[in-house]
Amino acid sequence: MIRMGVIGYGYWGPNIVRNFSSVDGSKVVALSDLNEDLLKKAQRTYPHLRVSTRSDEIIGAADIDAIAIVTPVFTHFELAKKALNMGKHVLVEKPFTYTTAQAEELIELAEKKHLKIMVDHTFLYTGAVRKIKELMDNGTLGDLCYFDSTRVNLGLFQHDVNVIWDLAPHDLAIMDYLIKEKPTAVVATGQAHINGLEDMAYITVYFPNKIIAHINVNWLSPVKVRTTLIGGLKKMIVWNDLDPDEKIKVYDKGVDVKTTNGVHNLLVSYRSGDMWAPQLEQGEALKLMAETSVGCMGNGKVPINDGAAGLRVVKMLESADKSVKKKGEIVYL
Amino acid sequence: MIRMGVIGYGYWGPNIVRNFSSVDGSKVVALSDLNEDLLKKAQRTYPHLRVSTRSDEIIGAADIDAIAIVTPVFTHFELAKKALNMGKHVLVEKPFTYTTAQAEELIELAEKKHLKIMVDHTFLYTGAVRKIKELMDNGTLGDLCYFDSTRVNLGLFQHDVNVIWDLAPHDLAIMDYLIKEKPTAVVATGQAHINGLEDMAYITVYFPNKIIAHINVNWLSPVKVRTTLIGGLKKMIVWNDLDPDEKIKVYDKGVDVKTTNGVHNLLVSYRSGDMWAPQLEQGEALKLMAETSVGCMGNGKVPINDGAAGLRVVKMLESADKSVKKKGEIVYL
Amino acid sequence: MIRMGVIGYGYWGPNIVRNFSSVDGSKVVALSDLNEDLLKKAQRTYPHLRVSTRSDEIIGAADIDAIAIVTPVFTHFELAKKALNMGKHVLVEKPFTYTTAQAEELIELAEKKHLKIMVDHTFLYTGAVRKIKELMDNGTLGDLCYFDSTRVNLGLFQHDVNVIWDLAPHDLAIMDYLIKEKPTAVVATGQAHINGLEDMAYITVYFPNKIIAHINVNWLSPVKVRTTLIGGLKKMIVWNDLDPDEKIKVYDKGVDVKTTNGVHNLLVSYRSGDMWAPQLEQGEALKLMAETSVGCMGNGKVPINDGAAGLRVVKMLESADKSVKKKGEIVYL
Amino acid sequence: MIRMGVIGYGYWGPNIVRNFSSVDGSKVVALSDLNEDLLKKAQRTYPHLRVSTRSDEIIGAADIDAIAIVTPVFTHFELAKKALNMGKHVLVEKPFTYTTAQAEELIELAEKKHLKIMVDHTFLYTGAVRKIKELMDNGTLGDLCYFDSTRVNLGLFQHDVNVIWDLAPHDLAIMDYLIKEKPTAVVATGQAHINGLEDMAYITVYFPNKIIAHINVNWLSPVKVRTTLIGGLKKMIVWNDLDPDEKIKVYDKGVDVKTTNGVHNLLVSYRSGDMWAPQLEQGEALKLMAETSVGCMGNGKVPINDGAAGLRVVKMLESADKSVKKKGEIVYL
Repeated sequence: MIRMGVIGYGYWGPNIVRNFSSVDGSKVVALSDLNEDLLKKAQRTYPHLRVSTRSDEIIGAADIDAIAIVTPVFTHFELAKKALNMGKHVLVEKPFTYTTAQAEELIELAEKKHLKIMVDHTFLYTGAVRKIKELMDNGTLGDLCYFDSTRVNLGLFQHDVNVIWDLAPHDLAIMDYLIKEKPTAVVATGQAHINGLEDMAYITVYFPNKIIAHINVNWLSPVKVRTTLIGGLKKMIVWNDLDPDEKIKVYDKGVDVKTTNGVHNLLVSYRSGDMWAPQLEQGEALKLMAETSVGCMGNGKVPINDGAAGLRVVKMLESADKSVKKKGEIVYL
Repeated sequence: MIRMGVIGYGYWGPNIVRNFSSVDGSKVVALSDLNEDLLKKAQRTYPHLRVSTRSDEIIGAADIDAIAIVTPVFTHFELAKKALNMGKHVLVEKPFTYTTAQAEELIELAEKKHLKIMVDHTFLYTGAVRKIKELMDNGTLGDLCYFDSTRVNLGLFQHDVNVIWDLAPHDLAIMDYLIKEKPTAVVATGQAHINGLEDMAYITVYFPNKIIAHINVNWLSPVKVRTTLIGGLKKMIVWNDLDPDEKIKVYDKGVDVKTTNGVHNLLVSYRSGDMWAPQLEQGEALKLMAETSVGCMGNGKVPINDGAAGLRVVKMLESADKSVKKKGEIVYL
Repeated sequence: MIRMGVIGYGYWGPNIVRNFSSVDGSKVVALSDLNEDLLKKAQRTYPHLRVSTRSDEIIGAADIDAIAIVTPVFTHFELAKKALNMGKHVLVEKPFTYTTAQAEELIELAEKKHLKIMVDHTFLYTGAVRKIKELMDNGTLGDLCYFDSTRVNLGLFQHDVNVIWDLAPHDLAIMDYLIKEKPTAVVATGQAHINGLEDMAYITVYFPNKIIAHINVNWLSPVKVRTTLIGGLKKMIVWNDLDPDEKIKVYDKGVDVKTTNGVHNLLVSYRSGDMWAPQLEQGEALKLMAETSVGCMGNGKVPINDGAAGLRVVKMLESADKSVKKKGEIVYL
Repeated sequence: MIRMGVIGYGYWGPNIVRNFSSVDGSKVVALSDLNEDLLKKAQRTYPHLRVSTRSDEIIGAADIDAIAIVTPVFTHFELAKKALNMGKHVLVEKPFTYTTAQAEELIELAEKKHLKIMVDHTFLYTGAVRKIKELMDNGTLGDLCYFDSTRVNLGLFQHDVNVIWDLAPHDLAIMDYLIKEKPTAVVATGQAHINGLEDMAYITVYFPNKIIAHINVNWLSPVKVRTTLIGGLKKMIVWNDLDPDEKIKVYDKGVDVKTTNGVHNLLVSYRSGDMWAPQLEQGEALKLMAETSVGCMGNGKVPINDGAAGLRVVKMLESADKSVKKKGEIVYL
């Protein structure tokens, strides 16, 4: 039984507490937040929880095996470092850290201490992403051409990070999980309209083998969109995460290319066949992430949401941020 | 009565012939195409039409006042130049030309000859674009933040031009018409998967006053999307051109910013109010374009789809094409 | 080559003329309408057409083999009877006639004269209905439970017939074609709000074997809906005729029933599997109807849109009309 | 402070406990269910709750002021009667009772005992229904023509009641609240396919003044639909309860009727204007229902979900059930 301490009870913290409380293999024993009202609210639901406004009390407690850090990104590094140094496993909310240097340092420290450091890339555990992964790995899509994701809504302006750091971690983590090739470069454009932080951005990620990815994130959209297109030469996927019933549609559409004998005569023809919406596994993704993460703390296995995955995402975020500041200048990874 | 000669009876030519035949002020008297079968098909519907496989016969005919050029883009310049030199008004299918130099030469020649040269930017005449123009010009949207357009489908691969030249002219012509500010730079990314021509591209256009535009064009999408978001500080528009009934939705959503007294304390709050779908004027846009163009040939007025509009679009296409080849290098306009 | 005369050039007439002009096996030689402006309009497009405001001139012409009657329903019987008596094959717009007695008389007369009488049940020739028919006939759906169709919009008020006679012929013809069992009774409810004719109606059709059908027709709906649900024990279909790309969706959803040993213990469990949208054959349904009908005039075959099909639909319309007047009183067929 | 006892912790019970626990003015002190596992589950979340498998213990407890009955419909009458006799206010899950006689007896008993009896018609407290009520009451819609509701899905088969008693209470309660006129008669058709209980039904309700309502309920639909059309002569509403953002759309569409001078010449013309989606009040409807109900227990006011409303709904359910058994025979109310 892993005894968890949770730091942060804002927007996402309650979900972390609820899930680590309910899965087999872990229980939440202590919670810290700077806001006393939030602590009181937590205790109404979980009267047994030990609470504190001082995170050090949680991090240092002898009866705690692992720390979940659910605080703003700029605090991740210091808190995670402390926790590792106190001998605790760590799960960090995404994005992992604010710099690749920080991410690398945490990964090294965890290895040295024989501890686990993981990142809450919840989306990797959804039925949708798992089904897409299966369809890509078993060759259904054929050679991959592109990954194109749109994640826009009228968003809560963050005061410390721009829209890239706020919304793109989801898409980059998913993309990193699905695509085997390693990205080579990033180009990002965008604009800050309100408070000096980019509120919309367009991120292109180049891969080998003609694969290209694009991520559109926007805090100023009047409508909420969560749509990802994944195009292969054999089949193509449209994933609409807002569709309650048919999130994943697989299209038997594509392009057939024939080079006729001897000459450079390219014949491009189109295929248009049936569409198919596979049944997805139900179940809360966060619960599965919690279960898997807790399991890996015990058994030494490496989860798909390990520190290395977190680092790869931070590297792309950092590069996109750098590129957007220079109006689309390419940043090689 | 303007007597028209039409060159080209492929995909779009029949629409041009039908509309210039039916509007007041013009009639189509002759048609040319290299494909004799297409000419026969045209004559079944329009037995009175004079047809020829030689465009020179049409361009040079004494009983013709204006030439509509509905051929592939690489032929536009030569055909238009000939027609102007023969004293004919000219309407060119979009994109106007393949280089800005060609566009400039045609505009100059037309001026010298006191003839009209126009481009078939049909979309400017749709009820949707006219309504958006009205809402932007009368201040309904407030200060403009962005224009974000997606035009993707499983597309007919062109053999001479990439997806930028094929699909983006629509969005760039609409953007050019709607936004008063002059664009300053273009960044484009994209990829060629099949035949060496880019089949997907992402174009960012920078404007003064923090305005930014983005255009997503793709020949490899399994689904057809024609959606444009236009965000202002007061209101925001979602234009879904595939919605048969409610193409334009105006959202009373936005961001209010207050700087509190004395300090640099930015308060960003959100507005979320009603949505409103205005009734749009019906009627075929191409017919209105034809009517207006024919009218301008007679009365000397300058239509919104004049050669200068065509040139501005070509300049952006040329720049995007240049940028995409250099993986997003910025191209100043 | 079947030489056609067409009577009526209102809303649907132009489609009939266009299609019977273009298919192999027939040509349109003459057209009649009471409205001279419509005749002029027809001649602009088809200068070779002989036109007349007197239908007798068309019906009696020696150079005409078949008559298409595209006029209001109350004129169908007299016109069709005349045409048959003059030795012409007849295609009648739906609904076939205004009474079953009329329909029976026409069918008998056609048989006696060795002529064909057919009804323009265009929908039977759409890719959607043909695919559904295939899925029902090959057992994909399993035992049929229900057919539930909604056909509503802000409709053109008719001055001679209510919404049942205007809109329900489509659904009843489709239902008659798809369901092998013979309907046993009809119950209809509805209301007239504006001009004394029912502008909305709900028609239930009872069949043997627990099959039930329901048709919802409405001229007072602010939105257009064309949706049919067809439920079988093994699979279920949703046909949304307004969806441009995925009209037919086949759901692997249903109910499994088990009676456990010895007792009357019914275990009802649910299946929820993949959804599948088959690719449909393209092509204009009306053209296929025209081709098939013309073919049958020559070769003696019986098309699916024969007079008998028209009669079965009229019988249900008549019964629904009778029931709606008596507030849902059951009418046995 | 109203001290509540809750009977039943199945599908809906947890929501009742959660809401009556959190609103001002009430707290839940005791819970009963026949299933001990459910009681244990409840105590994990609410350790302070007194639980029992014997409802009598709850109903008879001296420290309880009101009883919420969240059990199958056939138990409602006995439990509510006991509770009233023990001097408790009562809130009953919908449908109120299984017969009008039972409903009447409970209402009388409550009056005699000066206690409140209410029914959990939660939908009346949603932002959507409240906005529609406002638009109908302030004349926006004009004279009402119809109310047409579809509530279908692949449903949990009930073992004690058919689909009418399971799904139609929602629509009938909403209709009863929105329409001022009193219904005069009911016609219902339907079919039982699986276990002898109707799994689909079509209910027509006649009103004075040409108003008509129709309710389509179905347990065998592969897709979930929750759509209500409400047509007035001036404006029409489409309420799609599954749309996360724009549940209510108000269409400026309708029919204008003019009787021209002196004669019975009816001119019917169509209006088609803007569409408008009003912002709805957020907040959980069940919480508002709980608050209002608890408030009325204290202050003697009559809530919109009183026993009389419950009775009117039961009367229509009973009539629809009677009609469906007789294949649509009209049942006068």
